[in-house]
Amino acid sequence: MEENSFLNIAKKAKEVSKKTAVLSSEIKNKALLAVARALDSHKDMIFEANMKDLEEAALMVDRGELSQSLYSRLKLDENKMRDMVQGIIDISKLEEPIGKLLLKRELDKGLILKKISCPIGVLGIIFEARPDVISQISALALKSSNVVILKGGKEAVNTNKAIMSVINSALACVEGLPEGIITQVFTRDDVAEMLKCDKYIDLIIPRGGNNLVKFIKENTKIPVLGHADGICHLYVDESADFNKALNIIIDAKTQYPSACNSVETLLIHNNFLRAKELIDKLKDAGIMLIPNPESWHKEYSDKILAYKFVSSVEEAVNHINTYSSGHTDGIITESKDSAEYFLSAVDSAGVYHNVSTRFADGFRYGFGAEVGISTNKTHARGPVGLEGLTIYKYTLEGGGQIVKDYVEGRKSFTHKDLI
Amino acid sequence: MEENSFLNIAKKAKEVSKKTAVLSSEIKNKALLAVARALDSHKDMIFEANMKDLEEAALMVDRGELSQSLYSRLKLDENKMRDMVQGIIDISKLEEPIGKLLLKRELDKGLILKKISCPIGVLGIIFEARPDVISQISALALKSSNVVILKGGKEAVNTNKAIMSVINSALACVEGLPEGIITQVFTRDDVAEMLKCDKYIDLIIPRGGNNLVKFIKENTKIPVLGHADGICHLYVDESADFNKALNIIIDAKTQYPSACNSVETLLIHNNFLRAKELIDKLKDAGIMLIPNPESWHKEYSDKILAYKFVSSVEEAVNHINTYSSGHTDGIITESKDSAEYFLSAVDSAGVYHNVSTRFADGFRYGFGAEVGISTNKTHARGPVGLEGLTIYKYTLEGGGQIVKDYVEGRKSFTHKDLI
Repeated sequence: MEENSFLNIAKKAKEVSKKTAVLSSEIKNKALLAVARALDSHKDMIFEANMKDLEEAALMVDRGELSQSLYSRLKLDENKMRDMVQGIIDISKLEEPIGKLLLKRELDKGLILKKISCPIGVLGIIFEARPDVISQISALALKSSNVVILKGGKEAVNTNKAIMSVINSALACVEGLPEGIITQVFTRDDVAEMLKCDKYIDLIIPRGGNNLVKFIKENTKIPVLGHADGICHLYVDESADFNKALNIIIDAKTQYPSACNSVETLLIHNNFLRAKELIDKLKDAGIMLIPNPESWHKEYSDKILAYKFVSSVEEAVNHINTYSSGHTDGIITESKDSAEYFLSAVDSAGVYHNVSTRFADGFRYGFGAEVGISTNKTHARGPVGLEGLTIYKYTLEGGGQIVKDYVEGRKSFTHKDLI
Repeated sequence: MEENSFLNIAKKAKEVSKKTAVLSSEIKNKALLAVARALDSHKDMIFEANMKDLEEAALMVDRGELSQSLYSRLKLDENKMRDMVQGIIDISKLEEPIGKLLLKRELDKGLILKKISCPIGVLGIIFEARPDVISQISALALKSSNVVILKGGKEAVNTNKAIMSVINSALACVEGLPEGIITQVFTRDDVAEMLKCDKYIDLIIPRGGNNLVKFIKENTKIPVLGHADGICHLYVDESADFNKALNIIIDAKTQYPSACNSVETLLIHNNFLRAKELIDKLKDAGIMLIPNPESWHKEYSDKILAYKFVSSVEEAVNHINTYSSGHTDGIITESKDSAEYFLSAVDSAGVYHNVSTRFADGFRYGFGAEVGISTNKTHARGPVGLEGLTIYKYTLEGGGQIVKDYVEGRKSFTHKDLI
């Protein structure tokens, strides 16, 4: 590896980001459609590359070096490819996120302040196994005028290279588009360099398992958008409806147990009359129930559910605010008061009443696409759509105004909002 | 010092933050007015404490251990006290920042998603010398339902203690307010602990010189809201109006040279005809002009201005995007095209046309109060008002809906915005 090669890539990305910031919607959407078309027409080449990765991965599964679930996420088929292509077309149709006028205010006559949405700059994306992440994130970045440096898992190296070459060939044919919007790096050293590169990289988005996200959060000063754990709770209140509780818990635990928005802990009010029946029926649904486990911090990612009894909604809220990872937590109750208290007091990205935690998802929220789900307390929280890839700047336009006149009282501010 | 005492303070603060999150506007505003009244009626006690600090500080100035400018910032007088009190009253009158409905969307019939503004949680404030920061930040935190841990400079320890005791006595008398919203720590060890405490502290806001801010940014993984450098630029375009240029540059450099939004670098188009005259007049105004300095990264904080000639607006933009600290940069031109290009291509928190960079300020922008100025690319950028101390959560209210029904096609989303 060339010395400091990552630094050069990152520096270049920063330069390119100044050009992408001023791209028109028309060019960006044209580029997205070109990428969608190219992926569709080169899918056989991508499947071939994917086959190579799958052969190697199958051996790794045999040797116990790769899990079956990572193997299946690695695999691309006609369905996934169709979703990838459609996903990019859908993103091209989303509202333009850049150049939005968020505020227009007259500070004084002829002195106009505007707050305008703009791209963040350079995104570092670190992801595992799923090669479909490349096209999705690249499309979101392009739509939001950001530049991306992608680092995929080595299990998917052939697939990722094939997809990237298709994407970049397509982008190269779009007039007015700068080169280098999407680049890919491959080594562990590149990741280490990326995490240190706060001068050129503005935001890191990890897509992968808890350990990957934790490692990244621990090892960089660059803002990280994402979540490590998904310790979600459901609380069955004294006045919960039995059937709603049963259906919601089964859905939240079994519909996709390894998803981050699956429930891990069940809290039941002491006075909920049919608690034993509920637990029995959950067992019948194939869920293993663990009363009062040693740790409330465990994400089972399986049909396993820890539970305990509480004596009030306050105790439930307190347990959740202590042990939740701040992802999504819900109450099941017919009491308006309990629901209102729970919704306002639980400090999580998603706080639900009488619905499954599995709804925590950008597509279900109607964002059109999802960058990921954030448990951060700044910038973006919960499912993050295109808006999470934007920030804003202020422009101030005048006719020669100086501050001295305002400080010395010759002029004064009007502060009149114009939108 | 008790072992782990900071950790206990931070843990307590996190607990209190769950209570402040649900405070009503009425209680918060009542508390703010109580604090304002208490500061006003106990000002003599505060002046007395300030006098103690000033005596010690005067000796430090004599010994060369404290700068004259820090000394004058340390000093409280009737005017500053009146501003402090009025500032708190003004904050009480600002629009309630918490509980705002930012989105209300029907995902399906009877399945309502809301995006609601909420406090960030626990803020760590580290500031130097200026004791008036305590009351301002405390008031902003209280208004936005956050909890704060303050660490002031040791030069102001007596003043800070006096102000804190007045604030906390006033808060203790307000019914319905939890104890411990505002706490103060005093030692360097506390700062070191605060920077490590990402489990309990959600955001750090440094208020002080470059070195303080740089040190903090280098030494924590907690998000930091602020700016280290204020390397602001003014670019005099080919078609600039001479008088506007002269007035704006003089204001931006001399009105308050040590402010972060003062200009440090002047770029002049080669074809600007009266360049020599401009430079002479700037010298007449007491500004020292340095052509092509060794470094473009220097913040002079004095009546010193570096300058160079450029051959196009593109070169100016390029210079700015390379050397600006991303705070505030402006163009002086009568050309609409140059102005438009500059405003869209410069990647700074504030990008100005024909006005002084000194306008970059929360009060001047009409935010009512300012937490600080951020050069971050995520969360909040530019002058940050109350909004920068908030984030949001999503609530989802339904009647027993489960995801399985949507995945298996028995139900589908309507995604209808209700506001």
